Amino acid sequence: MNVYRYEENPVVTPANVKPHRPDFEVIGAFNAGIAKYNDEIIMLLRVAERPISEDPNIIKSPVFNPTTNELEILEFNVNDPKYDFSDVRMICESGNQSFTYLTSLSYLRIARSKDGHQFTIDETPFVYPSNELETFGIEDPRITQIDDTYYIYFSAVSPVGVGESMVSTKDFVTVEHHGMIFAPENKDVLIFPEKINGKYYALHRPVPKSVGEPEIWIAESNNLLYWGNHKHLLGLREGMWDSARMGGGAVPFKTEKGWLELYHGATEDHRYCMGAVLLDLEDPTKIIARSNEPILQPEADYEVEGFFGNVVFSCGALVEGDVVKMFYGVADTSMACAELSLQEILDSLTYL
Amino acid sequence: MNVYRYEENPVVTPANVKPHRPDFEVIGAFNAGIAKYNDEIIMLLRVAERPISEDPNIIKSPVFNPTTNELEILEFNVNDPKYDFSDVRMICESGNQSFTYLTSLSYLRIARSKDGHQFTIDETPFVYPSNELETFGIEDPRITQIDDTYYIYFSAVSPVGVGESMVSTKDFVTVEHHGMIFAPENKDVLIFPEKINGKYYALHRPVPKSVGEPEIWIAESNNLLYWGNHKHLLGLREGMWDSARMGGGAVPFKTEKGWLELYHGATEDHRYCMGAVLLDLEDPTKIIARSNEPILQPEADYEVEGFFGNVVFSCGALVEGDVVKMFYGVADTSMACAELSLQEILDSLTYL
Repeated sequence: MNVYRYEENPVVTPANVKPHRPDFEVIGAFNAGIAKYNDEIIMLLRVAERPISEDPNIIKSPVFNPTTNELEILEFNVNDPKYDFSDVRMICESGNQSFTYLTSLSYLRIARSKDGHQFTIDETPFVYPSNELETFGIEDPRITQIDDTYYIYFSAVSPVGVGESMVSTKDFVTVEHHGMIFAPENKDVLIFPEKINGKYYALHRPVPKSVGEPEIWIAESNNLLYWGNHKHLLGLREGMWDSARMGGGAVPFKTEKGWLELYHGATEDHRYCMGAVLLDLEDPTKIIARSNEPILQPEADYEVEGFFGNVVFSCGALVEGDVVKMFYGVADTSMACAELSLQEILDSLTYL
Repeated sequence: MNVYRYEENPVVTPANVKPHRPDFEVIGAFNAGIAKYNDEIIMLLRVAERPISEDPNIIKSPVFNPTTNELEILEFNVNDPKYDFSDVRMICESGNQSFTYLTSLSYLRIARSKDGHQFTIDETPFVYPSNELETFGIEDPRITQIDDTYYIYFSAVSPVGVGESMVSTKDFVTVEHHGMIFAPENKDVLIFPEKINGKYYALHRPVPKSVGEPEIWIAESNNLLYWGNHKHLLGLREGMWDSARMGGGAVPFKTEKGWLELYHGATEDHRYCMGAVLLDLEDPTKIIARSNEPILQPEADYEVEGFFGNVVFSCGALVEGDVVKMFYGVADTSMACAELSLQEILDSLTYL
């Protein structure tokens, strides 16, 4: 697979983003949704910020209070045996696998570009936590354009769970809120850009507790707000690049051979790669082909090192003829872009 | 709270149910959905059956194969250190909290009665596992009647997760399949029996993994098949009867004061009780009042002892004037019924 990584990579880093409050620092500008709006490429960044801590022994956790519309800043001592700080992204109660707080708060912010290489970042947040299902932040947006409306959906994180919520916009200025479209635990939703035989479709990634794995499911809808007829679509593969976790990546796009979905997979040691799956044009619940090897894996310095290293994670791509411009988050820190040949991707798949 | 338990309790036991195969035994006839159809009370039993094992060291697990439409019978040795058999309901891999197989297969079977005391049980299953999302069985049905259609929804259990699937019937003879309406992990769905301000509503009970507890959520729909606008409704309460697990029970019914939902709660030691929550008539996402004490708790022998003791678990009730006839599963084994006063239930609630 020939992969052309941009010379400018990473195209956006935390250093390019001004914190939304003077007492905060930006630690991530990554996992951005991608759209074309007028003559611009919109990169809708997940910006992660944390309260600046002067004391290395103090970890602060920002929590949005929907009643006051203010952030509350909690403080934890790294030596407190009650908590486990081993995952830099979260604060867990010792001995408990689920998290209690996050170490940063994410929201969505727009970066704009004419060429996909040079981006200008808006001064203020575009979508910010606004209700009790978003008190720990909103993460990993994807954007599906249908006619003149852009549907933006993202993980909504709070103590009651991680689900997928949606807003829409026609101008990237004002948004309409549509609530939570997939209940916890769910993320990595990808809405197909058109109806197929009269129905909308979406990929989603539930995380069941009692039985089952974090795998890709597909659902249908008549209005984009309500979803049902859930079916299990794509599973983990032992010993392969998608053995431990997986989820949809970029918005599926049409090719002659089928709907192409660029999805992420991870191994037990948290190495995140991108691969592809090809779905039937007339019935996207049917799998035609799949990547046995990743199409992109963490190799460049900025992919291997960072806040949470060894991660390439795409939430959006632009396709122009044979060129797939895959934008992707690197190391839970920055944004990069790589160009791949659509034909090469299709040729690389293993057909079932 | 005055509770009148029927003298006939349990009104249906496994001994009343003929196994659907000669090599199987019925170990549970419980957690039944309830409906009125013509002049009959329909009790839609969850029947749990297991392959008869002649060897006490061998535990058998039945698994439905959707390709052949046959059951496959797996065998496990109770001394195999690879597995943990400590929960009689399931087979877990040692050290793993999630289950790998179940020790029985559940399906739905009709019991009929003129008076709610004496039941006649159909000779054959009514709804049986039929697809890849139901290979471990279908469990805990509820029935919502809307006009002349009965919507029957239940937990669909398979290796990829536990979700809620739905069928409908007009005659309790033929059914139409509607697929999975709530993706894993979810169960204890309760569809309200009429539209409220133009929308259908349902309670549901996701079980998130990373963060959040098994608590009651509410969703809306325009067609009963697709669901969205998920909101967290009702949470666990430390130190109370609903401290560890909870979920909807009977189909919500209208009272002068609001929609009354009889729900189940359990403590850390798996003692399941029934309580009530009152929701706003015009907006069921608003809680008006709630039980601080259970309205029914396991006390009778048949509630305390059985396959999984100390459980009362209602999936349906009939309301006639002030009389609430609450049918409920006992000890994951049999069915019982108790009559309570609607006014007493309403008076017992703590208003917010």
